[in-house]
Order: sequence, then C-alpha cells, then structure tokens
Amino acid sequence: MPAYGRFPSSQLVEIQNQFILIDCGEGTQMQLSRYGSNLHRINHIFISHLHGDHFLGLLGLLFTMHLNHRTTDLHLYSHEGLNEIIITQLKYSNSALRFKLIMHLLSPGKQEIILDTKHFTVETIPLVHKIDCSGFLFREKTKPRRIDKNKIPENITLLQLASLKAGADIVDDSGKVLYNNEELTFAPRKSRSFAYCSDTAYHEGIIEQIKGVDLLYHEATFMEEEKDKAVETMHSTAVQAARIATLANSSKLLIGHFSARYRELDALLFEAKAVFPNTFLAIEGESFVIEE
Amino acid sequence: MPAYGRFPSSQLVEIQNQFILIDCGEGTQMQLSRYGSNLHRINHIFISHLHGDHFLGLLGLLFTMHLNHRTTDLHLYSHEGLNEIIITQLKYSNSALRFKLIMHLLSPGKQEIILDTKHFTVETIPLVHKIDCSGFLFREKTKPRRIDKNKIPENITLLQLASLKAGADIVDDSGKVLYNNEELTFAPRKSRSFAYCSDTAYHEGIIEQIKGVDLLYHEATFMEEEKDKAVETMHSTAVQAARIATLANSSKLLIGHFSARYRELDALLFEAKAVFPNTFLAIEGESFVIEE
Repeated sequence: MPAYGRFPSSQLVEIQNQFILIDCGEGTQMQLSRYGSNLHRINHIFISHLHGDHFLGLLGLLFTMHLNHRTTDLHLYSHEGLNEIIITQLKYSNSALRFKLIMHLLSPGKQEIILDTKHFTVETIPLVHKIDCSGFLFREKTKPRRIDKNKIPENITLLQLASLKAGADIVDDSGKVLYNNEELTFAPRKSRSFAYCSDTAYHEGIIEQIKGVDLLYHEATFMEEEKDKAVETMHSTAVQAARIATLANSSKLLIGHFSARYRELDALLFEAKAVFPNTFLAIEGESFVIEE
Repeated sequence: MPAYGRFPSSQLVEIQNQFILIDCGEGTQMQLSRYGSNLHRINHIFISHLHGDHFLGLLGLLFTMHLNHRTTDLHLYSHEGLNEIIITQLKYSNSALRFKLIMHLLSPGKQEIILDTKHFTVETIPLVHKIDCSGFLFREKTKPRRIDKNKIPENITLLQLASLKAGADIVDDSGKVLYNNEELTFAPRKSRSFAYCSDTAYHEGIIEQIKGVDLLYHEATFMEEEKDKAVETMHSTAVQAARIATLANSSKLLIGHFSARYRELDALLFEAKAVFPNTFLAIEGESFVIEE
C-alpha cells in the first residue's frame, strides 16, 4: 500500500521512441503529469498481474486520455480479467472511450513474445506469485553497423550504404568484393535489455531467460529478517533480488515494491548491495538510462 | 480529470464523532494520509455516482484498510453497479477483505433517508446528471437544552437532569411544577446542516429540500462563458452554483469540481461571489467548520 510518499507500482519505459507503461497503480496519471511525461505517447500498457497496487490507476488514466481527445488505439496486455473489469466500469459510468482498446491476453506460466517491432521485442517472464503474474523482458534487436565517415568512398550509393549497415560487403556487378564491410564500418551499438520482475517469490527459474540483462528491476518487498513473511506472501527480500541479479549476471539492479512497514529504505539498499553492489532504489520520479 | 495538483472528488465529513467519506476519486487514500486523517474512523462511504472521478480511489482504499487489519464493518452507499465492480475486482485479485462490506443501494430520483443515527440524519438529494446521481444532505437532530450551571439546584437527580436536557420541567410526585425548564436551561446549540451537490446540471428542484442549509457544496465545473458546455455535459457554472445558494438561502457556499481547463481558480470564485458573496473554493486539504 502507498506509504511515505511512495506510490504503487508503475514504470514508464522509453525504448526506440516508443513509450510503454508497465503496471499502473493508483495515482499513476498524477505522477506521470507531475514528472512531465506525455500520456499521449503511450500506446502500450503492460499489466503484470491483477492485484490492485498494479492496475487501480488504469481506469483513471483511460478516462483522462479520453477527455484529452485521444483517438489512437491503445494496446493493453494483461492476464484474464482486465477486460471484464474495464467493461463493468464503462457500463455503469455509461461511457464509451473515444479510442480503441486492443486487449492482449497473457498466457500464465509461459514465456512468449508479446510485442515484436522493427527495433525491439518484449517477452513475458513467468513469475511466481499468488495469482497469475508475468514480468516483461525488453530486448533491442541487433542495430545497424555504424559507417566510418572517414573511410567511406565518395561515390557510394544509398543502396550500398544500407547494405553496409546491414553487414554486407560492397561488391561489383560480377560479385567481386570491392570493400570488406569491416574496412568501412564499426560494430553496431549495443542492443540493450531490461527485465521487469514484480511481483514474485524468489524464483531461480527466471535466471536462464534474463541472463546478461543490462538492467534488472526486481521487487524487494522485505528485509532479510522478514524472509518468512516473503515466503508466505510470495514476495522477495532485497537480498533475494540481489541474488537473482548476481546469478543472472545482470549489469545493474533496481529494487522496488517496498513494504509500507519501511519508512527509510537505506537498510534495504544496504542489504542488497552487500550481495550485488550495483544496486539502486526505484524511487518516485527517478529515471535510469541504459547506455548503449 | 486531475490537473494542476487538484485531485478528483472526495470529502471527509466529521459529524458527531463520526467520519463519513463522500466520493472517493483516484488518490483519495494518499490525500487522506497526507492530511493526517485516520482511515479507520471511516465507517460509511457515500458514492454520489459511478463516474470514475468519484469512485476510482475506492478499491485502493478498501485494500489499504484490509492490509491495515481492519475488521470493523464498512457501509457503502451507491447507485447500482458498485457491488458488481467490487466483486469483479476482488475475484481477479483472488482477494477477500478482512472486514464486511455492507452495501446500501441508492434509489435514483428519490429523496430518502439513508442514515439515521441518534444525533443526525443523512438524506439523498436527487441530482440531474448523465447517470443516476445523488447528493447528500446532513442534518444534525435537535440537540439537548443546555443546563444553566449557575441556577441548577444542588439536590437535582441525574434523571431530572436528563429530562431538563430533553426539554421537560421538574415536577414533584403529584405532578406539580417545581421548576420550569426555561428557568434552569438555555436553548440548545444549533443543529447544523451540510449539503453535497455534485455532479449536477443547474436544477432548482433541489432548493426546497436544502432550504436554509448552513453549508452548501455545489459543483462549479465551468465559468459562465462555458454555459453551453455546462448544459451539454450536465454540469454547472460557478454562477449557477451561487444562484442555487442564494435561492436556498444557504449561509455559505463551497464550490469545486473545476474543469481541468482552468489553471487558476480566482475567476471562478469571482463570478460566484458576484452572485453569492460568502463563497469559498473547495481546495485540496482545506477544512471548513460550521459553527454551532
């Protein structure tokens, strides 16, 4: 539950000029507005699971988009039930949204690609919680090779430029190689990845899938002294989140979803850092950039 | 929709040691917490109508009460639909609340007493809006006469004291009046009243019912220049709210539910005050006390 100025879960992912909202707890639209995010650039909303702290802000956000005259389709991804919840509320408010909602049903317990664009994919991560719950793994696709501007011949055509970026050599009509790709290009920029894992009990089953992820967000509801409570409620401790980051060989760990029992979060961060030093707190309004 | 730090509708009424919440827009639980209100003293929640800005914070509030180990019954008052909305959400979150929800169905278009306690009543005010919508009229019952401590005889019994407070004279066994009530008591303190009218088109039909109310909250979504928009959306202008306050001979007017198109509210207040000078803005976190 919300406590000490901390709001329920929601994260906005900017990837390749797309804005994707993950979870939408109560107050998300106010927070987006407070931090200057443009609601209208959001075309996809992923809901990890149907506990209130992960979706109760959704209807308010939809109504605000409606009142702001949105007409662009909005894609919603959720486990079974969200459709019925939305329809029930629209029915009694006698409202129809000005834009189309396109519902995508997540499959419990299955890894599946739910979004596949030119530049990136998103796949679900089966998590272990009291109800069906999925995390989300964002992966940029391989990027174009970068042209070495100092070496590129002046008479090169746009078509040849495109094939260089795609990794091909420059050949003449007979197929003879004029330039090796490596002579004229640098390696592509790194394809970045981000995994969102909340809510979940400690579950090593996700490690294989998220191996080498650049940024891992993993819930850390409890301190280690409340380990039993974590097991009982199917949440994780900060140490457990750090252990997953270590085993997955993640570059960076972000912890969040802290219990309302903790006013200060330093101790949670301290426990996680003891296991995985490159850990940060997911704090309201903070941005985290993955460098290319 | 929320704008410029203004949250959707919710008001907390303290009356005779009871705390009653009227409407519960998104973020209400955070605002209650911010302003130091104790959720656990709320035993009745009235929802005027099922537009999102008046109830989308309810589920979050219920879950927080649950997580805070509430066990006391909670009474909810709403037009048809709230029950189904709550049940749908509890079903998919696989949750059962620790406390009992007692649902009271409001009757569209009818004045009816929905709460009748020892010290006050609440009756619905039929409003005119796009969907079934009721306002709420709080009235304190006649209070006990106040004992004049300087005149009260020393040998008076507790029973006699009680009958004095209830307005009776002191009589001896034969029925002979020993003291007239007026000799030993002052008139009771004033029975105060408060009317909550939101959302509604301008509707003089409510005047008879709220005549002489001490404090009137009336929605004022628009400035006068948007009068046509008010008619179309079945909302009121600030001037219309002030006109209702004047016709109802209210002592004080509180306006709220301002459109997100207004960053500053001074002009709305100015327009209302031109018609009804004793007007105030319903601003986040402000308290209004009705003197006895």
